Amino acid sequence: MERKETHASFGGVQEVWRHKSVSLGVKANFAIYLPPQAKTEKVPVLYWLSGLTCTEQNFIGKAGAQRVAAELGIAIVAPDTSPRGVEVADDDAYDLGQGAGFYINATQEPWAAHYRMYDYVVTELPALIEAHFPVTQQRGIAGHSMGGFGAIMIALRNPGRYRSVSAFSPIVAPTQVPWGEKAFSAYLGPDRASWAAYDPLELVRTATERLPVLIDQGLADQFLKEQLRPQLFQAAAQNAGQELILNLRPDYDHSYYFIASFIADHLRHFVSKLRCVDFH
Amino acid sequence: MERKETHASFGGVQEVWRHKSVSLGVKANFAIYLPPQAKTEKVPVLYWLSGLTCTEQNFIGKAGAQRVAAELGIAIVAPDTSPRGVEVADDDAYDLGQGAGFYINATQEPWAAHYRMYDYVVTELPALIEAHFPVTQQRGIAGHSMGGFGAIMIALRNPGRYRSVSAFSPIVAPTQVPWGEKAFSAYLGPDRASWAAYDPLELVRTATERLPVLIDQGLADQFLKEQLRPQLFQAAAQNAGQELILNLRPDYDHSYYFIASFIADHLRHFVSKLRCVDFH
Repeated sequence: MERKETHASFGGVQEVWRHKSVSLGVKANFAIYLPPQAKTEKVPVLYWLSGLTCTEQNFIGKAGAQRVAAELGIAIVAPDTSPRGVEVADDDAYDLGQGAGFYINATQEPWAAHYRMYDYVVTELPALIEAHFPVTQQRGIAGHSMGGFGAIMIALRNPGRYRSVSAFSPIVAPTQVPWGEKAFSAYLGPDRASWAAYDPLELVRTATERLPVLIDQGLADQFLKEQLRPQLFQAAAQNAGQELILNLRPDYDHSYYFIASFIADHLRHFVSKLRCVDFH
Repeated sequence: MERKETHASFGGVQEVWRHKSVSLGVKANFAIYLPPQAKTEKVPVLYWLSGLTCTEQNFIGKAGAQRVAAELGIAIVAPDTSPRGVEVADDDAYDLGQGAGFYINATQEPWAAHYRMYDYVVTELPALIEAHFPVTQQRGIAGHSMGGFGAIMIALRNPGRYRSVSAFSPIVAPTQVPWGEKAFSAYLGPDRASWAAYDPLELVRTATERLPVLIDQGLADQFLKEQLRPQLFQAAAQNAGQELILNLRPDYDHSYYFIASFIADHLRHFVSKLRCVDFH
């Protein structure tokens, strides 16, 4: 494991590491912010999943999360959004292949060999983080757009693994919108039955543990009506008895300016859940 | 004047505009953040000058300044760092030509035709901003590295024009360090007498108005010893009776992670000076 960057930030340190990932079969970058508290104690850790076209850099450079993480005493881990490299299958489109891993395990060629972001984010990366950095096993998960989908889907599939889940502008209905249909068709194949395991609308119906879900959605988001459609998750949550805090934000778009404006609320949401009794 | 971007941000709006600059002889981009208060009243405006290789994008995407600007009720204007375009002279090096305007008026060919960032920042841009946006004539100026040099130099040369000046990691001694010597040689020519008008060490000696200067400097900055040398300005300020607040920050580097960590202090420095009686 090789440290690629280290920057002092709000009394803590923002680092970027590169390691050989077993799940992905290639070297992968991840970013980790360690707050000042991590110098003397183990701290809880929030996993942040970014959206289409992003790397581990976008969140750490643009969201302004370090200030609040330092105040609250939490670490934040931000992985890349797909396997990368010349040996990794790719597509010219921005919404398939490298930069568009969708946090699922691909079963179809040419993707199956490396596109195993689900295993990477759920299992391999936390094991690595908890072995090498001063963090507790108190985990939260959050993300943006494709990564908002990933966060909600992963939390619903893994009861007990996370203390909180939240999302900005998530793709809540991947089986019903162009971004999701394109990615799932490629990575999982045409049989839609195989898509259900990654479909938040289906997962929320059958979930055995129901963390409250916090979603922030800008109403000036250019992808709102075609790709995001939060009302589909709202309806599914209501039918399932799933607690949902859906903040619709007039004027805000799909950019990191939106995320930066409300990221403090999402970090505080995570920390508020740490105070709850842990039944696991 | 054409609006290229608009993003809601902390209740205000982050915009990017493009206009035909008379000083530069080409179209130029600038960014402006308008806080929520600007919807109903005129607000003071801080000019931010970025460093080598930057455009108007770096500060607005990475510094996290909007949060505090919204809280304090100030606008922030961030121009590009040089004229740009196919008709504008350039150099392959990152520290000369496009992206490296140094906030001076070039007198030498091939630079003289367009490299007039001093006139642009001091005169043209504020006139434009004050004519088209809801801002007062209460101006502050701040910057990073090359832009920290620009801010200090411009404030010292223009008594009464700014209420405050501050800098991160500024190039305080351009006539004595490689970055400055290269740029001044190219833009102003080999006669070092012509450099004095842009030399903070000379300007601080002869200044007729002395705003306090706030400087933050990281001690893990990779450019500290060769290019920045803050102790040269410290000595000159002491000799001249110039008030200087020089914060040396252990562990911090030259990056925007450093700026983000302390930008709130610089915005508050500006606002604290607005409360002073205005003799001009």
